[in-house]
Amino acid sequence: MKPKTITTLGEARHDSPLSFSVADNVLIPADMEWPDGRVPEDLILFEKAGPRRMLFFDPAKTRAAIVTCGGLCPGLNNVIRSVTRELRRSYGVTSVLGIRGGYRGLDPSRSKPPIELTENIVEDIHKDGGTMLRTSRGPVDMTIAVEFLISQNINILFTVGGDGTQRGGNALFKEARKRGHSLAVVGIPKTIDNDVRYVTRTFGYGTAVDEAVRVINSAHTEARSVDNGVSVVKLMGRHAGFIAAAATVASQDVNFCLIPESPFSLEGKSGLFAALERRLEKKNHAVMVVAEGAGQEHLGTTGEKDASGNTKLQDIGLFLKDKLKAHFKARGIEMTLRYFDPSYQIRGRPANTEDALLCDRMGRHAVHAAMTGKTGLVISYFNGHFVHVPMDVIASGGKRVDVDGELWRAVLSSTGQPLRFA
Amino acid sequence: MKPKTITTLGEARHDSPLSFSVADNVLIPADMEWPDGRVPEDLILFEKAGPRRMLFFDPAKTRAAIVTCGGLCPGLNNVIRSVTRELRRSYGVTSVLGIRGGYRGLDPSRSKPPIELTENIVEDIHKDGGTMLRTSRGPVDMTIAVEFLISQNINILFTVGGDGTQRGGNALFKEARKRGHSLAVVGIPKTIDNDVRYVTRTFGYGTAVDEAVRVINSAHTEARSVDNGVSVVKLMGRHAGFIAAAATVASQDVNFCLIPESPFSLEGKSGLFAALERRLEKKNHAVMVVAEGAGQEHLGTTGEKDASGNTKLQDIGLFLKDKLKAHFKARGIEMTLRYFDPSYQIRGRPANTEDALLCDRMGRHAVHAAMTGKTGLVISYFNGHFVHVPMDVIASGGKRVDVDGELWRAVLSSTGQPLRFA
Amino acid sequence: MKPKTITTLGEARHDSPLSFSVADNVLIPADMEWPDGRVPEDLILFEKAGPRRMLFFDPAKTRAAIVTCGGLCPGLNNVIRSVTRELRRSYGVTSVLGIRGGYRGLDPSRSKPPIELTENIVEDIHKDGGTMLRTSRGPVDMTIAVEFLISQNINILFTVGGDGTQRGGNALFKEARKRGHSLAVVGIPKTIDNDVRYVTRTFGYGTAVDEAVRVINSAHTEARSVDNGVSVVKLMGRHAGFIAAAATVASQDVNFCLIPESPFSLEGKSGLFAALERRLEKKNHAVMVVAEGAGQEHLGTTGEKDASGNTKLQDIGLFLKDKLKAHFKARGIEMTLRYFDPSYQIRGRPANTEDALLCDRMGRHAVHAAMTGKTGLVISYFNGHFVHVPMDVIASGGKRVDVDGELWRAVLSSTGQPLRFA
Amino acid sequence: MKPKTITTLGEARHDSPLSFSVADNVLIPADMEWPDGRVPEDLILFEKAGPRRMLFFDPAKTRAAIVTCGGLCPGLNNVIRSVTRELRRSYGVTSVLGIRGGYRGLDPSRSKPPIELTENIVEDIHKDGGTMLRTSRGPVDMTIAVEFLISQNINILFTVGGDGTQRGGNALFKEARKRGHSLAVVGIPKTIDNDVRYVTRTFGYGTAVDEAVRVINSAHTEARSVDNGVSVVKLMGRHAGFIAAAATVASQDVNFCLIPESPFSLEGKSGLFAALERRLEKKNHAVMVVAEGAGQEHLGTTGEKDASGNTKLQDIGLFLKDKLKAHFKARGIEMTLRYFDPSYQIRGRPANTEDALLCDRMGRHAVHAAMTGKTGLVISYFNGHFVHVPMDVIASGGKRVDVDGELWRAVLSSTGQPLRFA
Repeated sequence: MKPKTITTLGEARHDSPLSFSVADNVLIPADMEWPDGRVPEDLILFEKAGPRRMLFFDPAKTRAAIVTCGGLCPGLNNVIRSVTRELRRSYGVTSVLGIRGGYRGLDPSRSKPPIELTENIVEDIHKDGGTMLRTSRGPVDMTIAVEFLISQNINILFTVGGDGTQRGGNALFKEARKRGHSLAVVGIPKTIDNDVRYVTRTFGYGTAVDEAVRVINSAHTEARSVDNGVSVVKLMGRHAGFIAAAATVASQDVNFCLIPESPFSLEGKSGLFAALERRLEKKNHAVMVVAEGAGQEHLGTTGEKDASGNTKLQDIGLFLKDKLKAHFKARGIEMTLRYFDPSYQIRGRPANTEDALLCDRMGRHAVHAAMTGKTGLVISYFNGHFVHVPMDVIASGGKRVDVDGELWRAVLSSTGQPLRFA
Repeated sequence: MKPKTITTLGEARHDSPLSFSVADNVLIPADMEWPDGRVPEDLILFEKAGPRRMLFFDPAKTRAAIVTCGGLCPGLNNVIRSVTRELRRSYGVTSVLGIRGGYRGLDPSRSKPPIELTENIVEDIHKDGGTMLRTSRGPVDMTIAVEFLISQNINILFTVGGDGTQRGGNALFKEARKRGHSLAVVGIPKTIDNDVRYVTRTFGYGTAVDEAVRVINSAHTEARSVDNGVSVVKLMGRHAGFIAAAATVASQDVNFCLIPESPFSLEGKSGLFAALERRLEKKNHAVMVVAEGAGQEHLGTTGEKDASGNTKLQDIGLFLKDKLKAHFKARGIEMTLRYFDPSYQIRGRPANTEDALLCDRMGRHAVHAAMTGKTGLVISYFNGHFVHVPMDVIASGGKRVDVDGELWRAVLSSTGQPLRFA
Repeated sequence: MKPKTITTLGEARHDSPLSFSVADNVLIPADMEWPDGRVPEDLILFEKAGPRRMLFFDPAKTRAAIVTCGGLCPGLNNVIRSVTRELRRSYGVTSVLGIRGGYRGLDPSRSKPPIELTENIVEDIHKDGGTMLRTSRGPVDMTIAVEFLISQNINILFTVGGDGTQRGGNALFKEARKRGHSLAVVGIPKTIDNDVRYVTRTFGYGTAVDEAVRVINSAHTEARSVDNGVSVVKLMGRHAGFIAAAATVASQDVNFCLIPESPFSLEGKSGLFAALERRLEKKNHAVMVVAEGAGQEHLGTTGEKDASGNTKLQDIGLFLKDKLKAHFKARGIEMTLRYFDPSYQIRGRPANTEDALLCDRMGRHAVHAAMTGKTGLVISYFNGHFVHVPMDVIASGGKRVDVDGELWRAVLSSTGQPLRFA
Repeated sequence: MKPKTITTLGEARHDSPLSFSVADNVLIPADMEWPDGRVPEDLILFEKAGPRRMLFFDPAKTRAAIVTCGGLCPGLNNVIRSVTRELRRSYGVTSVLGIRGGYRGLDPSRSKPPIELTENIVEDIHKDGGTMLRTSRGPVDMTIAVEFLISQNINILFTVGGDGTQRGGNALFKEARKRGHSLAVVGIPKTIDNDVRYVTRTFGYGTAVDEAVRVINSAHTEARSVDNGVSVVKLMGRHAGFIAAAATVASQDVNFCLIPESPFSLEGKSGLFAALERRLEKKNHAVMVVAEGAGQEHLGTTGEKDASGNTKLQDIGLFLKDKLKAHFKARGIEMTLRYFDPSYQIRGRPANTEDALLCDRMGRHAVHAAMTGKTGLVISYFNGHFVHVPMDVIASGGKRVDVDGELWRAVLSSTGQPLRFA
């Protein structure tokens, strides 16, 4: 068994003002499928999240800040609000800053100064999508950022963002330590794609599935309303098809679900096109969902990267749309194709109830971890429990849809599609 | 004053089974703005819709059919259901057919036979978007269609569709009359764009505005979440900008609303680009809504037409997106543009409450008109009343947003945009 | 013909800063159903609303205030926002006050002072239900109120409320005139019941119907899920059954709709109970909608009044629930009754798109009327046009569902219920 | 460690037609909080759910049935649909019956015969709330029921219902075994309250929280719109306050959350009334959420039971409403109280996305378990995994909100209410 320990800034010597606490030694097993009930030898264990009895930081003398980075994801404002309120109300921290415009806000030459987040300012923000702090893509100059944090007397930084953001946060903490500044950096992983290892569920993902199902509903209606109607819905999912898969199962109206984890052939008797033809012959309409990262094997690469350093994907949705039209034209089969690309409509929605619950607790657990001096970790909701996961564990690679697993089987059952289009 | 009379198939000699009726001589004025309160000399008057005391058709011997044509529009199933139920329950008509796949369904060589619409079949359809009868674009061979109608003993045909559909319906009635077959054709105008003259409100339009506002909400969130965020939302409206205008006013989050009725310049001090620059300087973000038919003066024409005979419009949304990006790049101003094109998501939605109310009454009024032997008309909701409008009046030209009128002024007030970008 | 003229405070001598205007002499006919197309002799004509070329008030020297009174209604914040923005942005009025807590806010001894409504404060309020100014019931001491208005240099007061509020507003204007203070009072009628004469549609009503349909949907599901399930839904409607009727038609799932305008018998072969028994025999479930003011003939009166002076109604919903249970028990028929009373859930919702559109335009038209010195009127949306209606016309009696009219007939058709339960 | 083994009907000798399977020996630990990372001695282990390689039942000769019992819960139709489709499509079972009207449907003298559930019949049912099979409360005569099952050649029975239903199912299987009839009974636990032990999440619960938040939103709006507005929202939760707690955290607008697990005093300095007074003094409004089973210590008991055998609870909501009014009247403090009781509105809603996902997988796992001959178990979603839980484990007692646990702490943080009102 391998307990994953969390770095701390030093001894926690201040009594917590909270009336309850979780002991530091409660560990949670990561792998839960035990053949013959035998405890796996290499079982990973994570610390349980929650308030601790002793704090590293004296609330009266602590200044915290929060930054939101990367693309929009439902729930950002919820996290900002709960972090702010937990710091102020529960711990009595008197200064909570909102860094503006993502990591760019740590560079005074590129951004306006941070704003003081009061309870009043955050009162109703959780009902809005987006982030009241604004966001941006791309890294920050470490030297400038750490100097800025020191100059502002910031001791705690909450980083809400994806991989790059969390790696950046880790670097900030290390750089600050070098300079003798006690800086706790606690991450809240943000990926609408839900592709973080050791995290069952990232916030925003559930809302994305909700909205995706709503779009699939219109797509299904369009397809059913004409002869040989085919609707193609492109959904988020660069490396992992969780949104596409879950929306497929929740909707039950999808006939073909394509994700990055399951490569597919277009041509041939067992290819996608032939399967679609058979579906149209039988049912006269079809709905296809495709994750944005699916089928990259059919596309060249531009080599381009976006400001966050992500490789720009070729557009599989438009590719499929064109190929499908050409194929059916060549085959002399009449078909009406409708294409749906709701990405930004989804990203801008407010959090649904499920995500609101998740964000509140994520935010508060991040505060608990930071106040006790933990750093270099992210808060994770994993197998029904909130745990501390070291940033380097997160960085070791992403989560993918297991094509032999339960979710993908639910997709195959509800679509009726074959194991693979080969 | 010019009363618009409706063609009838002959004398109404059967007592209506309904316990109430509207007299045939009740007329409704069309133009309601009277300078100095003087009745306009050329005031048009329409017949009030509603059940009549006497019927032309004997319900026991009448067979009705309904056909839905053209693109999807929220409320089609509601109309089908209410027409079916009014015929069966209120009048006791025993056969109501659903023509399948639009006008194509009137040609037995191109379609499956009609289905009998029972109360059971239509029971829950009003909760779904689309049309359970399916639809198609394009005209029908008159000879084939009329022969088919005669062969099926169909006496009443309800045509749910746009301009082309209604003109086709009119031709069917005339062709049938030539052959001595009593065929009442009653239209229910269908245009999500709400651009029919003498019709205050077509069904589906209100739902479209609802959904458009929902998308604008995400667009606003995206724009507000980054520095110089610009969201461009393309909405329906080929010749008339009602959806764009109403969504703008309802949302209150739009800064630029572009419609076909108000041409605009891109360049120059009073052009769109300069206005957008000023907005970004002041507020750092902007939301632009553009009707699909706006700004065609900036685009060439392909000359292509779709199956319904509509000229294919060039895509103003993509044009603006590209032009805006190029402009700001050339000006060295950083800007993040998000583009939204929700058209088919909107068309596939179920009717909202308002449209459900409208569809039910439209459908029932169409039945009343047909049973009393009226033909060559459409049912209209006009200035708060349901009226009969002759098809040739409808065909005389479309309704447009009055740029000196009340709705457009509400747009200007809520956006703050100038009278024109010139 | 009887044009309804509007009182003005005096000659309008200031040029309007707006670039468009509506002439004062454009009149709109009120009655639109003309037998044989003859103009009715006693036809009432209303002024068209809209901006005028000349203003009575000099924007630079004018102070306006807005007050919201009575029970909640979706759209109040939308009205507050559009009034504020039209005054500030379009006319350049520099002080707009929000009176707090309804008419109580005009009495400094009973309320906090008004707040200055800036564009910033009202920025996002239209997305929330309720009223940011708070509300209260009951009248105000005229002397105190007028003294307060004078002391605050308020020249324009927008009164958003029901009958009592508008009568109060009229009295305020008269009292102010006596004292030589130029006070324009412009009302925006607020009644979720939609029961104002010469007003086709009051704001909030459409949202109420939306929400009512949503509740009916659950009620229908409950009723259908058990043997002899009966769901009773009580909806708003003290004197007029518009919400109940419209929700019934929009939902299409209601079997019995009871409104104040159509008294009903419970017992006897043609009574409600017998009809319900027949329905259960045939279909095994039923949904009943009852307006709160329906069937008062079956109830005694308490004589009590609420703070607004409205007679307290006995609860017809609970009465029916108990009577139905007793009746079926006595008859030995098993039945499961579910009772729904969603009143306050509905009142607290944000405005839907339709109401948002209505509120924006209502608010702006109120500003136009006030700036040109008109007083003692309400803004009305009537037969597709915005008009000025004198307050005394409004006060002359309410609007009722016409049981011989088109809406009620739609109810009878969609429910299948008889003309009356007698 | 104590693996919980599942009863099987006999050896599984038929090859599964599915192309994937889960081994029978994969076990999942139940308790996951390990002090110092030591495996707990009495750790319970559950079988992982999923398809097995070998089946007990020959699909070609198997007849399955499904029954839904007790009160409505969002997702019932989803379960019916997925069970039906998994049996027919994946396994090739040719007869799937729907038992009508709950357990009553197993008694031919009290119900209509079962219906054959085809793929066509279940096609769109997952979009509707309720249960297409109808439901009822109360037990069934074992002898009659088993005779009926044998006479119908039913080998598999899926029981969707609460505690009583599952106990009844267990008894059915035992009675059938006595008579030599191989009957697999697999339960799908149904409780909107989410109070089943070893089940993280029951279906319908998430939808209930969604709807509860929507109601709280209106309640908050009402409370905020008047001086000293107090809204009391009664939510489901007979023995466990999960819905109340989760809705409180998700909404963030609740100030007092009362649940059965945390008794409270009304009077005294630390009582509820005093706390409410303080809240009103400070903020002028308050929202209170109360689970239906909370505060029973303040109420007498009627001793009555409903048809399902549940003790009828006194109505804490109405009790609090009256007490609060009386208290504030006695204290001379003006207060406006609004009461919300949305129970049946919530129960009748269709499943949200989250619940749709859960129901699909629950249903399919139930089929897998039954086909391989397992019986006397329920399917559970527990700590992120689907597992088999023996019925007697379920029956050993319910799940409660842990007032020292993470969820309740989130409630305390978001409401700001004290640990207890004592």
